[in-house]
Amino acid sequence: MRVVELIAAKRDGQSISSQDLHELIYGFTRQSIPDYQMSAFLMAGYLRGFSFAETVALNDAMLNSGERLDLSQLSGPTVDKHSTGGVGDSTTLVVAPLAAALGMQMIKLSGRGLGFTGGTLDKLESIPGMRTQLGDDELISQVSQIGLAVCAQTDKLDPADRAMYALRDVTATVGSPALIASSIMSKKLAGGAETILLDVKVGSGAFMKDVARARELASTMVGLGIAHGVNTVALLTNMDTPLGLTAGNALEVAESLEVLAGGGPTDVVELTVTLAREMLIGCGMTAAKDPSDALTDGSAMDSWRRMIRAQGGDPDAPLPAASSTHVVTAPASGRLTRLDAMAVGVAAWRLGAGRARKEDAVSFGAGVVMHAKPGDLVVGGQPLLTLYADDEARFGGAVEAVSGGFDIGSPDAAWSGSALVLEKVGG
Amino acid sequence: MRVVELIAAKRDGQSISSQDLHELIYGFTRQSIPDYQMSAFLMAGYLRGFSFAETVALNDAMLNSGERLDLSQLSGPTVDKHSTGGVGDSTTLVVAPLAAALGMQMIKLSGRGLGFTGGTLDKLESIPGMRTQLGDDELISQVSQIGLAVCAQTDKLDPADRAMYALRDVTATVGSPALIASSIMSKKLAGGAETILLDVKVGSGAFMKDVARARELASTMVGLGIAHGVNTVALLTNMDTPLGLTAGNALEVAESLEVLAGGGPTDVVELTVTLAREMLIGCGMTAAKDPSDALTDGSAMDSWRRMIRAQGGDPDAPLPAASSTHVVTAPASGRLTRLDAMAVGVAAWRLGAGRARKEDAVSFGAGVVMHAKPGDLVVGGQPLLTLYADDEARFGGAVEAVSGGFDIGSPDAAWSGSALVLEKVGG
Repeated sequence: MRVVELIAAKRDGQSISSQDLHELIYGFTRQSIPDYQMSAFLMAGYLRGFSFAETVALNDAMLNSGERLDLSQLSGPTVDKHSTGGVGDSTTLVVAPLAAALGMQMIKLSGRGLGFTGGTLDKLESIPGMRTQLGDDELISQVSQIGLAVCAQTDKLDPADRAMYALRDVTATVGSPALIASSIMSKKLAGGAETILLDVKVGSGAFMKDVARARELASTMVGLGIAHGVNTVALLTNMDTPLGLTAGNALEVAESLEVLAGGGPTDVVELTVTLAREMLIGCGMTAAKDPSDALTDGSAMDSWRRMIRAQGGDPDAPLPAASSTHVVTAPASGRLTRLDAMAVGVAAWRLGAGRARKEDAVSFGAGVVMHAKPGDLVVGGQPLLTLYADDEARFGGAVEAVSGGFDIGSPDAAWSGSALVLEKVGG
Repeated sequence: MRVVELIAAKRDGQSISSQDLHELIYGFTRQSIPDYQMSAFLMAGYLRGFSFAETVALNDAMLNSGERLDLSQLSGPTVDKHSTGGVGDSTTLVVAPLAAALGMQMIKLSGRGLGFTGGTLDKLESIPGMRTQLGDDELISQVSQIGLAVCAQTDKLDPADRAMYALRDVTATVGSPALIASSIMSKKLAGGAETILLDVKVGSGAFMKDVARARELASTMVGLGIAHGVNTVALLTNMDTPLGLTAGNALEVAESLEVLAGGGPTDVVELTVTLAREMLIGCGMTAAKDPSDALTDGSAMDSWRRMIRAQGGDPDAPLPAASSTHVVTAPASGRLTRLDAMAVGVAAWRLGAGRARKEDAVSFGAGVVMHAKPGDLVVGGQPLLTLYADDEARFGGAVEAVSGGFDIGSPDAAWSGSALVLEKVGG
């Protein structure tokens, strides 16, 4: 294979053989194929697209670039989940202990997010003492004892994806459905679970803005999982408005604790319970306790506390809080008909909850608390949003981000909310 | 300007501002923008195309990346020419002394070719003693004395093009019309001539396979020249069959000497005379001697000999010859209806006349001599081609390249040859 001919073939819309794609990924990961050739190939692929057969080859080459986690020492059914990312998406914090409470074993490996808020690791690290770097032996030992671990992906898994993602990030080639699908699935498959649940977000605050593109991505990912003999199901879920009532790191941990205590926002409860039910189906455990009961009887909270303690955290320590707050009030009375996920996400990011570069720190306490969601009646002058930041200078940009991000309509107009779970793909 | 946003804009087919393109080229040339971002941008541009305004900006940014040759000390009209490259294309070796003999001043700056044969510099260097590296002062002095110089482009001119071409060559982004046009024209404009003649080759042995694409390239280049106040004319010329009867370095020099002596193949004479006439029109010298007379009266040959001597060469020294020959005979009697330029070019390349990598040496004596051209009657068993190489092991691959590269038809069938000069663009 001459690399320049491979680039030319993709540029001209020809199909690329599985062997050539394997050699490309292998050579790139070992740095015998330079970045500038890979980025030209990725841009050609972005614009020409990849067939499913090509996507399978990309996925497998990335998966084979590193080790796979060996879960053979675990006795129970193993599950994993992935969300394509949204605003206020703290589902992992609830689903992982919920799955463990239901008798499944969940190893959730995460990366650092570049999103509106930090990723799952940042959220967890807002808990005093919490460690998210676990060795393989420690990880397996913890899961065999308490049924769950949420921690950082090790460097040994999928180095090809790390190298490719770093390049895609700076060459405007992130948004290719095939590259997204193979990036996610090669990491998930390297994680070794028998069942994988995918939460594909759709809407203004998500990467996928419309259902058709989200469905294409979901189908591709489910296909990649099935091709490897892994039970894989995707849910398409609404991300036009934030999930829950918080967007931030410690703020979302606090909200997750409410859900694990049997309360919390109804949409977070609905989504986490739905995900857990799909996991039970995937594991052939439909006779198990219903997930909603595990939230109300305290068993999911017990799993959570065990995980926090196992990873060095103090589940009873106060969470970090931002030093300053700013309240955005409702400008009129009526029904809140829109609260835009993207606007709230940008506000959270500007308040310090997210990072612009991988090496940046996030503020644990920063973020947005919502006092109403679409469909709720509000009174002019009441608090609509509370903004949290460590530095008052950040409020201006955040207020600008949310202005125009919500609509208040007549309280008497007909109101039909939108479904949270839009579609199921696979399963 | 954030580079990744610029790449994304081109990827999505948006127009890029002149300022952003200037900053991109500036940053890339100074290595503050890495290769991998430039190659992603180039591939996006290859597939999305560039508007004329964008091409102007690319051209000007490349031109401004280095110095421009200062020809103000020269008193007469200055001309330059460029060929997009074909098989057996030795026109520069004839046109440069022809232009000088007609009273024009020609500075032809060339690069090293990666084509089927070496470039113009390699052809000249097959003449014993000939130097092609001239300093600026030496160059201007030589041209003011004898009216011409054919030499290597200096590093001070158009460094952006050098860096971009090296990257395009290994990322399958050479073939973009806008990138080809701006690469050629930024170099030509840096050369400082008042009139530029472009010979855009069309056909099997050329980069442009069809007239429509060649016309697009020619129009763009003419537009770039005109935008800089330079008389610019392009001829679209046929490259389905090789030009002349030779393809090789010293072989083409010998053929050029025949033309400068008033003989030589009719197609070489026709093309060089046509190019010289267009140069005279561009220089407002239509009352000058006709170029064909300068070939027959010895004045063009005199200019040639002056140039060879001025650049250290011996015009009377024997040219290098290959040590081995192999004759390909006509398999049947009839009319030669096709002799494919690409087939002959690949054969010449395999015989050692061209190079695969910039650092490779070329064989001066290697190449192909044709004993018939399309339209000629041949007799079965007569020599059709003579192959020249320094190593007999090279003949196998060359024979393979030309087998299937020609057709012999009925001698009685109607025959209408194809025109050599297909179209004129500009002027």
